[in-house]
Amino acid sequence: MKFVRFSDGYSEKFGIVDGEKINEISNSPIGKDYNETGEVFDLDSIKILAPNPNPGKMLCLALNYESHLLGADRPTRPEPFYKNSNAIIGPGDTIILPKDSGLVVCESELVAIIGKTTSNVSEEDALDHVFGYTCGNDVSAREWQSGTRSDKQWWRAKSSDTFGPTGPYIVTDLDPQNLSIRGFVNGVQGQKCHTSEMIFTTAQAISFISRYVTLDCGDMIWTGTSGTTPPINPGGDVTVEIQSIGKLHNLVNLSS
Amino acid sequence: MKFVRFSDGYSEKFGIVDGEKINEISNSPIGKDYNETGEVFDLDSIKILAPNPNPGKMLCLALNYESHLLGADRPTRPEPFYKNSNAIIGPGDTIILPKDSGLVVCESELVAIIGKTTSNVSEEDALDHVFGYTCGNDVSAREWQSGTRSDKQWWRAKSSDTFGPTGPYIVTDLDPQNLSIRGFVNGVQGQKCHTSEMIFTTAQAISFISRYVTLDCGDMIWTGTSGTTPPINPGGDVTVEIQSIGKLHNLVNLSS
Repeated sequence: MKFVRFSDGYSEKFGIVDGEKINEISNSPIGKDYNETGEVFDLDSIKILAPNPNPGKMLCLALNYESHLLGADRPTRPEPFYKNSNAIIGPGDTIILPKDSGLVVCESELVAIIGKTTSNVSEEDALDHVFGYTCGNDVSAREWQSGTRSDKQWWRAKSSDTFGPTGPYIVTDLDPQNLSIRGFVNGVQGQKCHTSEMIFTTAQAISFISRYVTLDCGDMIWTGTSGTTPPINPGGDVTVEIQSIGKLHNLVNLSS
Repeated sequence: MKFVRFSDGYSEKFGIVDGEKINEISNSPIGKDYNETGEVFDLDSIKILAPNPNPGKMLCLALNYESHLLGADRPTRPEPFYKNSNAIIGPGDTIILPKDSGLVVCESELVAIIGKTTSNVSEEDALDHVFGYTCGNDVSAREWQSGTRSDKQWWRAKSSDTFGPTGPYIVTDLDPQNLSIRGFVNGVQGQKCHTSEMIFTTAQAISFISRYVTLDCGDMIWTGTSGTTPPINPGGDVTVEIQSIGKLHNLVNLSS
């Protein structure tokens, strides 16, 4: 199933994508029953919105691809950090760089959306707690993250407003360890990986996190990025593309 | 005004505390209009609950009292980190220590609750965006925070389930820089400070944060702790007491 949150110009709606059509449903499907309303929309006549705009929390994995370690020690356990919902924007929206943010990069990654309360779940059962998957761009201000200008924690490096593009769809019934991911800046491919290269699988990460932090319906787990992450620049654009999910495209501008 | 969220044994309710009585109101007052229902409860016949159990986000200040620097450099800007709502418990509830958490300490601090959307607010206007104040205990697993066992970021050091006691009341119209705070572990005073000693005032912190991260109604700003923070232990208890707000008392136990 491929779910979409969208606007027809009048209101926010939810639907199931079927080719070039959207069959509207009554409400967000994340962890909830829904009905088809009978209304049908053309995919090319609506604006796609962030699929899950207000998660209670987001945990994102640092250092979860060998190719992204770049000299850092290989982690011995999942290494989450928090990103907050103020960062979330949808497809086509603009990433706004704070004037003093310095070098800002994109990070293309697979995002799992939790479908039900998850506490102390086993690795074997962890994926039963995932509703579906979407694309995420973990926009990161590197100078606030490390080096002489760094903050103690990554609060604005990772969660400045607009630093969390997500979308376009939530796709269910995927194998999260069997997807290719590519990232493009200004049309040039800058990242490429396969989710089989994760150091900790999605299931391992959810199981580990849930030993300490109870996950709720709608929470999002960002599963980490690969390789060297390309800078983004005002006036430019960035795309995250994940196999079987789609392309998440965003513009970039400087704060006024 | 002194607001309380409580249970009469049947349902969750909100009220205004007037001496030993509670005048029930229709809904959470945080950023919303409310009506008095006419129902009156005795303060000693109800259970007080966490006053704001599901904030969208919480930003907490590291290193905001000179006495807590303990050799760390004095910060040149507010140094927030995130705590999440899964951590929140109310007065009388039990802090559960994960079995592998090692040394866990309490941190008594003043918490401001945001009353309306706050973006790029000036220091002068920042406190107009605060609905009220409560007590917070920023429970911290020190070995996950620094040293050889530390995580990359403070995700479970600060936000394991139950690591965020808050309450008992939300008090409005306070001067957040003119309050005394004391922390007690097992009845022994372990922390004592005055909020005039903050390195960055509540208003300065909110103004700075809001340049990067939009704050929403119900978000909480934890303003930092003082001095050396006392360890808490299974079977023990801990109290945070703030002038004009009240006492936040919690028990401590080990995860089963």
